[in-house]
Amino acid sequence: MERAIGVIDSGIGGLTVAQELMRQLPKEKLIYLGDTQRCPYGSRTEEEVQQFTWQMVDFLLTKNIKMLVVACNTATAFTLPELQKKLSIPVVGVIQPGARTAIKMTANNRIGVIGTEGTIQSRAYEQALNTIKTHIYIESLACPQLVPMVEQGMLSGYKAEQIVRESLAPLLMKNNIDTLILGCTHYPLIKDTIQKVIGQEVTIVSSSEETARETSTILDVHGLLYQGEREAKHAFYTTGNLEMFTTIANGIFNQEVGNVPVVDCEKIVIH
Amino acid sequence: MERAIGVIDSGIGGLTVAQELMRQLPKEKLIYLGDTQRCPYGSRTEEEVQQFTWQMVDFLLTKNIKMLVVACNTATAFTLPELQKKLSIPVVGVIQPGARTAIKMTANNRIGVIGTEGTIQSRAYEQALNTIKTHIYIESLACPQLVPMVEQGMLSGYKAEQIVRESLAPLLMKNNIDTLILGCTHYPLIKDTIQKVIGQEVTIVSSSEETARETSTILDVHGLLYQGEREAKHAFYTTGNLEMFTTIANGIFNQEVGNVPVVDCEKIVIH
Repeated sequence: MERAIGVIDSGIGGLTVAQELMRQLPKEKLIYLGDTQRCPYGSRTEEEVQQFTWQMVDFLLTKNIKMLVVACNTATAFTLPELQKKLSIPVVGVIQPGARTAIKMTANNRIGVIGTEGTIQSRAYEQALNTIKTHIYIESLACPQLVPMVEQGMLSGYKAEQIVRESLAPLLMKNNIDTLILGCTHYPLIKDTIQKVIGQEVTIVSSSEETARETSTILDVHGLLYQGEREAKHAFYTTGNLEMFTTIANGIFNQEVGNVPVVDCEKIVIH
Repeated sequence: MERAIGVIDSGIGGLTVAQELMRQLPKEKLIYLGDTQRCPYGSRTEEEVQQFTWQMVDFLLTKNIKMLVVACNTATAFTLPELQKKLSIPVVGVIQPGARTAIKMTANNRIGVIGTEGTIQSRAYEQALNTIKTHIYIESLACPQLVPMVEQGMLSGYKAEQIVRESLAPLLMKNNIDTLILGCTHYPLIKDTIQKVIGQEVTIVSSSEETARETSTILDVHGLLYQGEREAKHAFYTTGNLEMFTTIANGIFNQEVGNVPVVDCEKIVIH
């Protein structure tokens, strides 16, 4: 199937999902839209997140995408069920794949979740985990310092480690989880620092990696995988603030992302 | 959704998939049918495997299952596309989940696959891997000694290790894969022995564990997850040879599987 996979995110965190999609599904084309003009979503209201997400979805629908990946935990928490209900294409969010993997990985049924305030307050991970398994202990923690740190490009080193240690302090004090879900797509960029702070004995689940893995499953089950041979070309769009986007994107992909057109999402009103 | 997940297998290998389903989806009911009377399928013809598989599917359809798991690599290799086309419920096999995970895990794009003669000759893993990713080196190896060894209850120790070492010799000589797919649902029972022989640096992918993980994904995407609270009760059926089945099942589940009715599959002809 020639059509592309659409990926939306509040800004740059979803690039870690795009990176994994490109690695795990190298024949699939991506069309990525990052709402860099209005990010971060973590502290926005549910209504704002819903409105912004639908605007981005409407843009990608004009590109005839075959599947939608909501590569932002906050947007997933607030919009996934509605998107799944209203769109005729498959929609995957970043919360359920991480939850399922954590259930697969945990041996002591004690799982930690870190994310933005919006994601943690939504209790979306608790709900995703408990839908599948009731007898599970979940320790959720909002880490509002981590996204700004990543967006400043501070990914490792003494200062980054100090901020991560402060942020994770409530988890470290209890120290009884065996699995930690990175419930924000920015966090895979500081995975090594988080692993160092939380300890090697805790399994870290990257929602980005697992979302790419489930996208592969869902495309297959729906008969939507591209069947031929090609080196897929991708397209990246933002809503503004181009410099931060291209700097971080070029770092993640280790190559220039090329031309990144700016989209005015507020002008696209279909629903 | 109250209905059960149906699981079919040539005999006892699929119990490792059932075990993972019970662990990863503890609220879901299973109805398992093992074709112990006619196992192993590994050296049977394509036509025989297709005929036997449809007989088992017909039996499970009378139980109103909501999803079908083909927990046997040989049956998956020979029947999955047809089952997916003809049945109105979702169908998952054991080959694609292992293939997708191997692609996620490998760093050097060199993947080994071990399985029965039927599975290896079908080239189903090559096909599943190459559909997703072309530039990948795959080393496939039939290990006909391993299923009889497992069915005799020989899972570890010197003799088991010796047989595994002999079987894997062609892989060990080349020694350049970083990921090994256990392409037979018996093999998770000797995973530790295989890991010891192949070395700790090789990531072993259990198709059983990954199939359970994808069953969870597919149920969710189709809105078929059980939403309430319950301790699920399961039902096990065989086509005969009950003693071997209950001995191995009790060992895997660490508890008695209870009454295991014998089904005469040849009498059920719906298609």
